[in-house]
Amino acid sequence: MDNFVFSIPTRIVFGRGVEARSGAEVKQYAAKVLLCFGGGSVVKSGLLDRVRESLDAEGIQFLELGGIQPNPRLSLVREGIAVCRDNEIGFLLAVGGGSVIDTAKAIAVGVPYAGDGWDFFEYIAVPERALDVGVVLTIPAAGSESSTSAVISNSDISLKRGLTSELIRPRFALMNPELSMTLPPFQTACGAADIMAHVMERYFTNTRAVDFTDRLCEATLRTIIASAPRAIANPEDYDRRAEIMWAGSVAHNDLLSTGRAGDWGSHAIEHELSALYDVAHGAGLAVVFPAWMRHVFRHDVARFAQFAVRVWGVEMNWFNPEETALEGIGRLESFFKSIGLPVRLSELQIPPDRIPEMAAKCVVKGKGSAGNFVKLDAVDVAAILTSAL
Amino acid sequence: MDNFVFSIPTRIVFGRGVEARSGAEVKQYAAKVLLCFGGGSVVKSGLLDRVRESLDAEGIQFLELGGIQPNPRLSLVREGIAVCRDNEIGFLLAVGGGSVIDTAKAIAVGVPYAGDGWDFFEYIAVPERALDVGVVLTIPAAGSESSTSAVISNSDISLKRGLTSELIRPRFALMNPELSMTLPPFQTACGAADIMAHVMERYFTNTRAVDFTDRLCEATLRTIIASAPRAIANPEDYDRRAEIMWAGSVAHNDLLSTGRAGDWGSHAIEHELSALYDVAHGAGLAVVFPAWMRHVFRHDVARFAQFAVRVWGVEMNWFNPEETALEGIGRLESFFKSIGLPVRLSELQIPPDRIPEMAAKCVVKGKGSAGNFVKLDAVDVAAILTSAL
Repeated sequence: MDNFVFSIPTRIVFGRGVEARSGAEVKQYAAKVLLCFGGGSVVKSGLLDRVRESLDAEGIQFLELGGIQPNPRLSLVREGIAVCRDNEIGFLLAVGGGSVIDTAKAIAVGVPYAGDGWDFFEYIAVPERALDVGVVLTIPAAGSESSTSAVISNSDISLKRGLTSELIRPRFALMNPELSMTLPPFQTACGAADIMAHVMERYFTNTRAVDFTDRLCEATLRTIIASAPRAIANPEDYDRRAEIMWAGSVAHNDLLSTGRAGDWGSHAIEHELSALYDVAHGAGLAVVFPAWMRHVFRHDVARFAQFAVRVWGVEMNWFNPEETALEGIGRLESFFKSIGLPVRLSELQIPPDRIPEMAAKCVVKGKGSAGNFVKLDAVDVAAILTSAL
Repeated sequence: MDNFVFSIPTRIVFGRGVEARSGAEVKQYAAKVLLCFGGGSVVKSGLLDRVRESLDAEGIQFLELGGIQPNPRLSLVREGIAVCRDNEIGFLLAVGGGSVIDTAKAIAVGVPYAGDGWDFFEYIAVPERALDVGVVLTIPAAGSESSTSAVISNSDISLKRGLTSELIRPRFALMNPELSMTLPPFQTACGAADIMAHVMERYFTNTRAVDFTDRLCEATLRTIIASAPRAIANPEDYDRRAEIMWAGSVAHNDLLSTGRAGDWGSHAIEHELSALYDVAHGAGLAVVFPAWMRHVFRHDVARFAQFAVRVWGVEMNWFNPEETALEGIGRLESFFKSIGLPVRLSELQIPPDRIPEMAAKCVVKGKGSAGNFVKLDAVDVAAILTSAL
């Protein structure tokens, strides 16, 4: 086990109706906030009005930044930074899923920074200060509601990049599983894949003697595997929505990485797909992860066999562990298919022609390689993407 | 799943040599501290000197309160409160295990309180303020290093009582698994039983649809079951010590109770044993828990069968779930025996004569009953203790 530092200061308030606490929670931090949200569903459902009422009731002034899209754009981050500066705003309240939260986080570090906000995502600068961020979560997927990371797309240069900083961990997250009941089946499935990917990126490690976090990872994966199909079959199943929403936070709050180095190669590859083709992150991960696994599993067959046995209930073939390992990968792929996700690039209408370009860009940000479990070069990334055509 | 509020603000710094950070961590909170510790081992091992040096190096003034015993006494808490008041001390640094940490916590709430510090443990008063507490952990067991609870014995009236308050969650915990290598086998085993008990108190619940936390509980139990015998066989096995130490914190930091009501009947019963006979808490729990389980398992055979199958690898008898449930309880008892713990009151030299007294006192604090999974009256408690003779 590696040394580590860990805390989860984000105050999670979880359950039915907790969005009514928006004003009371914000009040502890600021009197003037920027309310960030996406498009139709938070408006149609009445959620945005309930949040506005809660802010009004506590006498909190607010301006609004709506229209945030999936794979959130730098342009809107810049707009938000300007609004905050011009209006002396001290707090960002994100109402939505990962894209909205990540936009708020990017604005939060950008406001007190003299340079351009994109610098943090190019690793030219490291954030030293940030406005506080709070969350009303509607989509369990990104885990951004209690994580230290944010991912933003720069459409000018077709790049999607991530930032990690303790400064952008939200102060609070109001998590009402009912708010996720209106998610369409495909988006619920994408969220499940994203949550599972956050766990699997941590699970596939070269660190030895990490039995406890292995088991916590397996517990989280089995929860999603059990709950996601039921939430898709019955969107108003509160208990399944609740399991997914809570597991989605734990999957990415860093508990599951304590004492171990993760991989993150599949995320790096998927970000290239999203940057060029604007695919849903979870759908891209469902395509990339099984392909990545088949490319690297011989690096540690025992770990993949453990994954197959403990997560998928595969019976261990003691005389042919590779067969067990491959069966686990097959089960993951079948599971993604069963909940309506693509597992091939062709299902995403992605042709082979720009694979070399994506492979090259993917390894640039890692200074020549992507991932840690196995360090992938551009040839590896291209082979993985080609195998997923 | 029930609604819940959750955060773990305690900063965990985990790994080899982290006690050297004592001074640097304390410095963020106070310039004058009370250093709390127990007896021989922290002195003999040189740990206390290393902590003193670290405080000195940061220019932090400190007074000392040593001699804290297992089942820590109110008398020393009162002494500590007086020392803090007389010397304007602003922070408590606990170097040790649960008894030392809980003494520091009880002092922390006692200093700013006008009445007697025992009031909080009799639920006459609720803490409104507290000094900050930090921890250098030496014994993985109580989980007090990142928990909101403290347990103190009042030997004047033979009572052992607990306090729960967010105010007493430590600011930081420095956790070096090497510091636990000098624990004798019996104390390592007692720690394992205490950690497992913290999980099992949460596991046996009447709350429905708590699959995720069930699985996290099972992961934690399996980790201790796998690691404790190896740590006992090879006390200097860093990796096993690390698994136990980290699992011991997670077992009691409230992650495993999110969205569910726990039981805590076995803890209530054990506190009566410790109050009268001064037994090691973990040893008392090893006696009480299997006896409690056999008394209550028919209340929810399915839950006990799940415990047997998922935690102990018992094969499910679909035609006789009670047999499966009982086999799980038997496995737990056998495990405790295998690591050198008592499973009978007679092994603790506890005779039957004061069972009625303990049963009566146990249910007083719960206003007539103990536990939640099954509400035990004094007759139940007496029956459980009698069955464990």
